[in-house]
Amino acid sequence: MKTVQTINELQDFLYSNKGKTIGLVPTMGYLHEGHLALLNKARVENDIVVSSIFVNPAQFGPNEDLDRYPRDIEHDTELATKAGVDVLFVPSVSEMYPFESGISIHAGELSTKLCGESRPGHFDGVLKVITKLFHLVQPTKAYFGQKDAQQLAIIETFVQGYNFPVQIVRVPTVREADGLAKSSRNVFLSEKERVEAIHLYKALTIATETWIETKNIQDALAKGKAHIEQNTSGRIDYMQALSYPNLQTDLNNVEQVLFASAVFFENARLIDNIIVEVKDV
Amino acid sequence: MKTVQTINELQDFLYSNKGKTIGLVPTMGYLHEGHLALLNKARVENDIVVSSIFVNPAQFGPNEDLDRYPRDIEHDTELATKAGVDVLFVPSVSEMYPFESGISIHAGELSTKLCGESRPGHFDGVLKVITKLFHLVQPTKAYFGQKDAQQLAIIETFVQGYNFPVQIVRVPTVREADGLAKSSRNVFLSEKERVEAIHLYKALTIATETWIETKNIQDALAKGKAHIEQNTSGRIDYMQALSYPNLQTDLNNVEQVLFASAVFFENARLIDNIIVEVKDV
Repeated sequence: MKTVQTINELQDFLYSNKGKTIGLVPTMGYLHEGHLALLNKARVENDIVVSSIFVNPAQFGPNEDLDRYPRDIEHDTELATKAGVDVLFVPSVSEMYPFESGISIHAGELSTKLCGESRPGHFDGVLKVITKLFHLVQPTKAYFGQKDAQQLAIIETFVQGYNFPVQIVRVPTVREADGLAKSSRNVFLSEKERVEAIHLYKALTIATETWIETKNIQDALAKGKAHIEQNTSGRIDYMQALSYPNLQTDLNNVEQVLFASAVFFENARLIDNIIVEVKDV
Repeated sequence: MKTVQTINELQDFLYSNKGKTIGLVPTMGYLHEGHLALLNKARVENDIVVSSIFVNPAQFGPNEDLDRYPRDIEHDTELATKAGVDVLFVPSVSEMYPFESGISIHAGELSTKLCGESRPGHFDGVLKVITKLFHLVQPTKAYFGQKDAQQLAIIETFVQGYNFPVQIVRVPTVREADGLAKSSRNVFLSEKERVEAIHLYKALTIATETWIETKNIQDALAKGKAHIEQNTSGRIDYMQALSYPNLQTDLNNVEQVLFASAVFFENARLIDNIIVEVKDV
């Protein structure tokens, strides 16, 4: 595996592999099995796998955890090598943002829901870096985890609306044995919180199953919320059911319903979700 | 020459020409010699020339001339064929904008100057359609006329800031024998205005020459404005000198200075400009 820090090196590598299919896995590093699932899928489906590690300042708010976002480039390099990545792009902030153009991308209405409500500007920053990575790498396919369902919905909509020549691949959430979704932020949980954290997924399961059974969305969400309140010390940011990928509260005649929740623990805000295929229920 | 109305047909054509260099000339149609200069340059520099004709609603304000923007697809087809265009893309509005993603691009500070001041949202709409065209065609080079200098500055900045894999080529303004810049909107001038209109370029020439001689920018612009006021019935929208391409009023240590002006006539707003290479003066 080749690790490159500059756009020039990245593009030299890509130029020497012209004509091959490219799978892109953009990450913020501190790789875990969730990322490995993306890399593995990319490895199977493409000639070349490009992964990026870039803790993107543009997607962190002023009071968020940019500075303490966990980093371990040595371990990441090892994991990426094992996963069969061909080139790992690890740019500096000044390499990605050498100047401020003053031209911005606004994620709009889709970004006002769910996580967007407590993270204003977050998805604008995601779209900024994703646009740059898509243009730099020109991937055939790009891989995103379902765990960040709102991000996935916004990127899918962006790609469709602006005709990016890339196919977005949704990869299922990878979980610990007890059900907790893998996340770089899990390291910030205390021992007690780590035990409680499994109830985020349990609550989503309860809400989903209640809805499938009764089709009563209020009751389903109330049961899910109650489960978190009764079993954790966390504070619920939201638990909602929205159509996917257009994130509307009207669930009539929709094909997919997203049950999503975010919970604040002492030093970490965890998110998780379940997407229900309506035709299956 | 092949004319296509749909994205599918366009992409079929491009797929069958994979590996070739592509020159893109985006237009709003009603082609004149200014467009032909772009097409000719694209023809010389690329294997394949793609041109688009799309009167983009997103770049017209509510009180602007979208509905009466001149159209003549038959004549355009003839001219494009003669110019050696390989494929002419003439999409409908619903083909280009089948749904509203809610995700928007904002041209920001660069768009608040010059024409942007009287055309709020105009350059956002330009960036929207250009992003889509760049993604659909994936051109090696894209050609824009210097006549729309602010548009060119914004697109150059956008491409650089967001790493679009395309080279932007600036093509000099084509003029009538008497100096008037070619424009689709010139047809809206009355006979009297058509005679007066040559003074827009004359005034810019006076301003430029005064500045080169005296380096007094206030005096240069005043002389230019006075020339328009004394020789036309038009109303000056602006006459300004800004650094190019970052469009700042501070002209110290800049490489290029843009002298630009816009004048309202009865039924047409005309623009023109001169870019001075500072090292040459």
